[in-house]
Amino acid sequence: MSQTVEIQRQPDDAAARVKAVSAVTTFGPEAPLQLDCGVSLSPFTIAYETYGTLNVDKSNVVLICHALTGDQHVASRHPITGKPGGWWPMMVGPGLPIDTDRYFVICQNVIGGCMGTTGPKDIDPGTGKPYGLSFPVITIGDMVRAQAMLLDRLGIKDIFCVIGGSMGGMQVLQWATAYPERVFSAIPIATAARHSAQNIAFHEVGRQAIMADPEWHAGAYLDGETSPAKGLAVARMAAHITYLSEAALHRKFGRNLQNRDKVTYGFDADFQIESYLRYQGSTFVDRFDANSYLYITRAMDYFDLAADCGGVLANAFKGTKTRFCVVSFTSDWLFPTSDNRQIVHALNAAAANVSFVEIDTDKGHDAFLLDEPEMFATLKGFIGAAAERRGLK
Amino acid sequence: MSQTVEIQRQPDDAAARVKAVSAVTTFGPEAPLQLDCGVSLSPFTIAYETYGTLNVDKSNVVLICHALTGDQHVASRHPITGKPGGWWPMMVGPGLPIDTDRYFVICQNVIGGCMGTTGPKDIDPGTGKPYGLSFPVITIGDMVRAQAMLLDRLGIKDIFCVIGGSMGGMQVLQWATAYPERVFSAIPIATAARHSAQNIAFHEVGRQAIMADPEWHAGAYLDGETSPAKGLAVARMAAHITYLSEAALHRKFGRNLQNRDKVTYGFDADFQIESYLRYQGSTFVDRFDANSYLYITRAMDYFDLAADCGGVLANAFKGTKTRFCVVSFTSDWLFPTSDNRQIVHALNAAAANVSFVEIDTDKGHDAFLLDEPEMFATLKGFIGAAAERRGLK
Repeated sequence: MSQTVEIQRQPDDAAARVKAVSAVTTFGPEAPLQLDCGVSLSPFTIAYETYGTLNVDKSNVVLICHALTGDQHVASRHPITGKPGGWWPMMVGPGLPIDTDRYFVICQNVIGGCMGTTGPKDIDPGTGKPYGLSFPVITIGDMVRAQAMLLDRLGIKDIFCVIGGSMGGMQVLQWATAYPERVFSAIPIATAARHSAQNIAFHEVGRQAIMADPEWHAGAYLDGETSPAKGLAVARMAAHITYLSEAALHRKFGRNLQNRDKVTYGFDADFQIESYLRYQGSTFVDRFDANSYLYITRAMDYFDLAADCGGVLANAFKGTKTRFCVVSFTSDWLFPTSDNRQIVHALNAAAANVSFVEIDTDKGHDAFLLDEPEMFATLKGFIGAAAERRGLK
Repeated sequence: MSQTVEIQRQPDDAAARVKAVSAVTTFGPEAPLQLDCGVSLSPFTIAYETYGTLNVDKSNVVLICHALTGDQHVASRHPITGKPGGWWPMMVGPGLPIDTDRYFVICQNVIGGCMGTTGPKDIDPGTGKPYGLSFPVITIGDMVRAQAMLLDRLGIKDIFCVIGGSMGGMQVLQWATAYPERVFSAIPIATAARHSAQNIAFHEVGRQAIMADPEWHAGAYLDGETSPAKGLAVARMAAHITYLSEAALHRKFGRNLQNRDKVTYGFDADFQIESYLRYQGSTFVDRFDANSYLYITRAMDYFDLAADCGGVLANAFKGTKTRFCVVSFTSDWLFPTSDNRQIVHALNAAAANVSFVEIDTDKGHDAFLLDEPEMFATLKGFIGAAAERRGLK
């Protein structure tokens, strides 16, 4: 049987701007998740958080989609790292662009993830052991299908606004094309309608780093309580470089040395950038599952929104009534403006309602997570205008 | 005692454009290599190749400096991979920009390398075991100092032209500043006067991938005849992405699938780019030593030509009479034109004789190794004019 468990988890969190409700909903045998690979996944669980209050006609829902290593804790203390405020603290809260006094915000951990939604680290009921590599390969389409099932379960038909950056932006695009009638407005940020060769290449390096770790044990590391932490850390380090810009690295670190006056002629972290990267790698492994990293990167690689439309992206948006706001960043070389502009061109070709803003920043891809006043102003304006059009109070 | 052994190795190589002479020179206790780290390395060996004929007044020497994973086989069959023609087949040979009918070409394997010149895989005479991590950390300055000792040994005082790309270009700059009176002309290609934070970061990822491999055994893998091949392959894969451009990856691979009609919903190399990267990683480990990779990347990270000149790069070139030709490539994001332009600005500030060409290409950093007609024409013109000025026949 399906069931939902809710936990009010924020009253003790003084740093929180807004009260979060954590919940998990389990879908039983009567509601399997039909995956693109052909597998029917059942049972499965979705972990999510909500912020704010659902209005009477359920018309004020903002769905936030998280990125590769994100999770449902968009505006609440992270249960593992203890970091307060969530991963989008300047975006979500009272009076912020995603105003929790006005909207009912939902953020779900994606299928394949490791923060409560069913993924490769969970127990396969068929074997009684963790799935590991026997977990079916999932897609962005599967992630969104699972999210839609949760909304159905919550009795929510329409989404006022779906928003996300990077892989979150891919989900936004998938929502807008798979369920166009359910999406009033959509904000894909720093994303692409298909993953580029270079991005697939970086993901492959990360996967190979994990798989090269003998502690990975062909994905079955949880059986033996080992962990491919070193491989996962290398994967994270490589990926982390791609999230920043050369200019930001130069500004933040340059060739500054780490707590020393001169180089040591050794392989310690002489440079601050080395120390920083090692820290990024070592802290990541505490909060993320290596197999989830494999599965979620694979889902991104497979994403190609136009593939089912004869390669013509505009066809994916044909007849859409959704209002779009596409955002890119000048120094983002992982999902460069050109990738985002392709989405805009396709939307224009489909005569869709779209605005496009390229934010001038040197912070690279990660800019969508950081303090970017122009982004906040843009999104506050767009969401506010959409709310007015939607007749939201 | 010091000695040199020469081997004529090309007569059987039908693919060779030019006869190569392979040689190794060992420097005995009377001639230690004074390293920047303070260690005095002795004995040590330099492996090198020569092409063409030294003229009577020894004024026709072209010194080619190789890049991170290059070696002395600049225009001869590689002894391990069997690849004919060397790593710069279109640049070096009769009638080519570096014309072996006209110039006496020398290419030395760098100190710290693994193709015959002393490096961490060689036996430490003090212990009778491979150096491993007890090999002293070397710098670009050390590489060039060793090269100068070889030229001294060969009775060669002046270099008509020193040329190299990437780390080879760093050596060119080092030559021109450490021994300005010996260098008539210098051609740094796709390089920088100091290694950027982003480039240090990518190197650190590679080093961490190697060090994360349990077969690395803290550098002592040769004692046990193991090899951190998986870690080294990951390092190579990550680095290889940086050698290409996004445009080239898109043009060559895009999202093309590898010998299949549809994705497999698995972790095989579904995409051509994945298959290509895996191949690059797996073949590299056959020809390169993992510890050499650590040491040589470290030497590049440490490179900062202005560091000894109060941070003012122009001071490094003060009073130089060398003729420079700086070459960059539009799509090179590892050593972007801006890095190369800094060299040009410093040379201009030092009132040096410098020409600068930015080649329009989508091939990325690796362009310097590839078929770039504009580069060939530029270098043929520059080298020819310099030869005329030098009075070479």
